Amino acid sequence: MKRVYLDHNATAPLRPEARAAMIAAMDLAGNPSSVHAEGRAAKAVVERARAQIAIAFGADGADIVFTSGATEAAALAMSGRGLQGAAIEHDAVRAWANEVLPVSKDGQVTVSDPAFTALQLANSETGIIQTLPSDLAVTDATQAFGKLPVAFNWLGAEMALISAHKLGGPKGIGALVMKRGTDLAAQIKGGGQEMGRRSGTENVIGIAGFGAAAEAASRDLANGVWEKVRELRNILENALEAGSKSTIFVGKDQERLPNTLCFATPGWKGETQVMQMDLSGFAISAGSACSSGKVRASAVLTAMGFDEHAAASAIRVSLGPETTEENVLRFAETWLEKEKKHRARAA
Amino acid sequence: MKRVYLDHNATAPLRPEARAAMIAAMDLAGNPSSVHAEGRAAKAVVERARAQIAIAFGADGADIVFTSGATEAAALAMSGRGLQGAAIEHDAVRAWANEVLPVSKDGQVTVSDPAFTALQLANSETGIIQTLPSDLAVTDATQAFGKLPVAFNWLGAEMALISAHKLGGPKGIGALVMKRGTDLAAQIKGGGQEMGRRSGTENVIGIAGFGAAAEAASRDLANGVWEKVRELRNILENALEAGSKSTIFVGKDQERLPNTLCFATPGWKGETQVMQMDLSGFAISAGSACSSGKVRASAVLTAMGFDEHAAASAIRVSLGPETTEENVLRFAETWLEKEKKHRARAA
Repeated sequence: MKRVYLDHNATAPLRPEARAAMIAAMDLAGNPSSVHAEGRAAKAVVERARAQIAIAFGADGADIVFTSGATEAAALAMSGRGLQGAAIEHDAVRAWANEVLPVSKDGQVTVSDPAFTALQLANSETGIIQTLPSDLAVTDATQAFGKLPVAFNWLGAEMALISAHKLGGPKGIGALVMKRGTDLAAQIKGGGQEMGRRSGTENVIGIAGFGAAAEAASRDLANGVWEKVRELRNILENALEAGSKSTIFVGKDQERLPNTLCFATPGWKGETQVMQMDLSGFAISAGSACSSGKVRASAVLTAMGFDEHAAASAIRVSLGPETTEENVLRFAETWLEKEKKHRARAA
Repeated sequence: MKRVYLDHNATAPLRPEARAAMIAAMDLAGNPSSVHAEGRAAKAVVERARAQIAIAFGADGADIVFTSGATEAAALAMSGRGLQGAAIEHDAVRAWANEVLPVSKDGQVTVSDPAFTALQLANSETGIIQTLPSDLAVTDATQAFGKLPVAFNWLGAEMALISAHKLGGPKGIGALVMKRGTDLAAQIKGGGQEMGRRSGTENVIGIAGFGAAAEAASRDLANGVWEKVRELRNILENALEAGSKSTIFVGKDQERLPNTLCFATPGWKGETQVMQMDLSGFAISAGSACSSGKVRASAVLTAMGFDEHAAASAIRVSLGPETTEENVLRFAETWLEKEKKHRARAA
């Protein structure tokens, strides 16, 4: 039986539009910094993608600095600034944050000093959406961009981190979006690309794919694709809830990403569930992709007050535009069967 | 008439093998950090490429840390270490170097303390090759890798910077190669990828292209492709030398990259030559690609003792495996015609 990919928050399959743009960019021989025709053609692809992203992210007039991903964008935005943050942030943000902000049991962060704070727009594990205060220093929009109607120019944040591969672009390309004229010290220095903010020959093929994916994601949003994803997510959640009494559905009553479902079944390790479901043909995750493999409870759920026992039993199912009703019903059936067996063993 | 691309040191056209590997990698949905089948398949592509690069670069048993390019690799290897360097290094290396090492008129650098020095293997503008001392801290092998038979394990350097797009891979991916177990502080932190030395979801498509390009470049080297390129470069150099008395050929008697030709015609600005040749269908450069556009003399030639007047008149022609004899003869004819006109105007 065909495998079902339900791990879109870890990385989304490449959109056909991104694939086509990348293949077209493969024919360009030039370096965007070269002044000859080949160089100018490569430069034009980079600038077209920058414009596509500006439109899709509502960042017209803002500066978009291409990076190798949101992780590098986080380092560029936050390193050495001592910004405040919460334990529910992605590890790439936590690495630079002074982790002092409290998290409520509903997953909401209380910000005390927005101008010195990094706060995510949506959580990768639970999908829970934050209400951003005005004049926030940095927002991690990686999970929200492409799944929610977001406009940087209305967010009120000085900087935002975005990534291509979460919205159907390639892995290895992202950007730091900044209010025009924001002061920023380069970390990767050399040729002076990206207006001196980030040196290195541009990832032309990846940038082309990012631009096309952002445009396609924006069109999907406008066409209500993610509302259909939300319905499927809710169908899945209701089916699981009806079948398992001991499972906790995290963030069920909160504003969440339309595609994300996080649930904990205390006593049944998340990693075990991931492996069992993998063998049955479903790709899901326990915690964020990059911390998977490490045996530990979800830092996100722990920060929300779940005990270690519950947090270690959480899994995340994240749907995408290509997910079907058959996919989610089969997932529910398979998972409930395994959960029943687990209970029988544990009894 | 079909354009002739003679700017391979700025960036090389994508090799068909790299293109095929990248298109194949586009079908992989997974994140290499995910434990499910899709994640493991993506991880396998990354590890296969790492092995291909290890073989092509003679770095079996060394650590290969993927970065967004040689520029990021330079920052990772050199930032905060105060290594010594010379003014002929690439800007990405110069950014971190204490620029104290003397350069001879032949372009050779005198190293006093190898363990605290960064030294390039081959210069991007002149092609001049350095003899590396033992126990060098860092070597920039970006231009040499793929054009010369280089084996990291025999270089005697602790670390080397390499880049995919100089040898026919995609732009935006490179690596820092290190003797196994070398101590290194991560600069881009977060998910802990690349054994904690460089976080961020891996550029799977770019890495696949890098691996395939390295393998193909290595095969080309073994097949003598670059010796044919060297013959064409020499044909070109001789034709130009025979036609222009006032032109200086830089590094003619030095060990050079087989594909690189750098020459200065004092009084005729390099940028002007680049533009004129561009209009006639040839892509070449004045100085390195990333500093082109900026009006300034070549720092490389200035460091070699050329006066500003001569240094500002230098251009670089860099050939590739697909360059033909017709290409170089037509280049020589076209350039000599323009040079004659320039002399007539200047007289």
